[in-house]
Amino acid sequence: MSMEDFLTSGKVRLDQQLKFSAEIDQMTQILRRTLLVDKSRRENDAEHSWHIAVMALLFEEYAKEPVNVSRVAEMCVVHDLVEIYAGDTFAYDVNGNQDKQAREEAAADKLFAQLPEEQGSRIRALWEEFDALETADAKYAACMDRLQPFLHNTLTDGHTWVEGGTARPAVEKRMGIIKEFMPEVYDWISANLDRAVEKGWLKP
Amino acid sequence: MSMEDFLTSGKVRLDQQLKFSAEIDQMTQILRRTLLVDKSRRENDAEHSWHIAVMALLFEEYAKEPVNVSRVAEMCVVHDLVEIYAGDTFAYDVNGNQDKQAREEAAADKLFAQLPEEQGSRIRALWEEFDALETADAKYAACMDRLQPFLHNTLTDGHTWVEGGTARPAVEKRMGIIKEFMPEVYDWISANLDRAVEKGWLKP
Repeated sequence: MSMEDFLTSGKVRLDQQLKFSAEIDQMTQILRRTLLVDKSRRENDAEHSWHIAVMALLFEEYAKEPVNVSRVAEMCVVHDLVEIYAGDTFAYDVNGNQDKQAREEAAADKLFAQLPEEQGSRIRALWEEFDALETADAKYAACMDRLQPFLHNTLTDGHTWVEGGTARPAVEKRMGIIKEFMPEVYDWISANLDRAVEKGWLKP
Repeated sequence: MSMEDFLTSGKVRLDQQLKFSAEIDQMTQILRRTLLVDKSRRENDAEHSWHIAVMALLFEEYAKEPVNVSRVAEMCVVHDLVEIYAGDTFAYDVNGNQDKQAREEAAADKLFAQLPEEQGSRIRALWEEFDALETADAKYAACMDRLQPFLHNTLTDGHTWVEGGTARPAVEKRMGIIKEFMPEVYDWISANLDRAVEKGWLKP
């Protein structure tokens, strides 16, 4: 009896859904550059996705346009699924970001084809909306996706900045969506960028 | 300059929200009995919460009553937050489950008091709705909360069942909500319970 037997219900759709559920557990193996707050280890994509989904329930009041928080939570939990096949691309990795889109499109083709068609399309559309950064929901989700690692960096002695020899303008650029969409939160970010440069965690 | 300095924006609400965001990262330290699908280690609460939120996007068609999937995703990502202070109580731990409610109520008091009042109340209400198992959304979320570890157990040689010397009726009872609310999915569970007993992973 193989693993396959346990995932076979005799019904095509249910089999696809169960197998996909097992497949995505690989998100726990995709390590990000960011450390956990307690510095014990790098966080993984499953943890990061969960974390920003909860944060999406908290920061709505700072968003410049109305957002649908429940829908954003949904977007957050699926926004990194393609990394199961495409891997995590470090935000400040110039080369890695050049072919990121092509790698992720190919990964999406492979991943979402495993689901019943309308379900694959629906989740893919959420991911594409997130990536396009055009709707208010996508902008808000992207703000959470930038705010969470920024928070972790400030709490872990600037770990990923120090490791990458990162300079302040690169982080400012990455945080641009927060500056645009959540200016009040950006004020806090800006003050912490000053502190991070003072501490030597970021190059000026 | 201490960690506190980095979490101080000068605005009371924002400080509370940032600190809460840092605090809940402890979910990554709460280990469950369930192994990851690749058996490399036990999964943690952050991973589990993320996993069932994604699964909630997939199994709606089997629910006996209409559910609001986005709302369920939200419920899933917060349903275990109280375990930051109360710890994880193993589903088949009879003693641990006797005082579970009191421990979790105390944990909720401590946790949600850290947020602006209406936000704490809103998230606590989601958790209480989940726990009460009365609404369709809560039943559906609970089904995901039972289905995901069941799936992992079938894919990891019945790991938590073997470890706990668990018998089939205890698992049947735990899966009762799926039998009631998603009978078609329960057929697959029931067939796998037969297989698990055959394999010796579960006592009859």
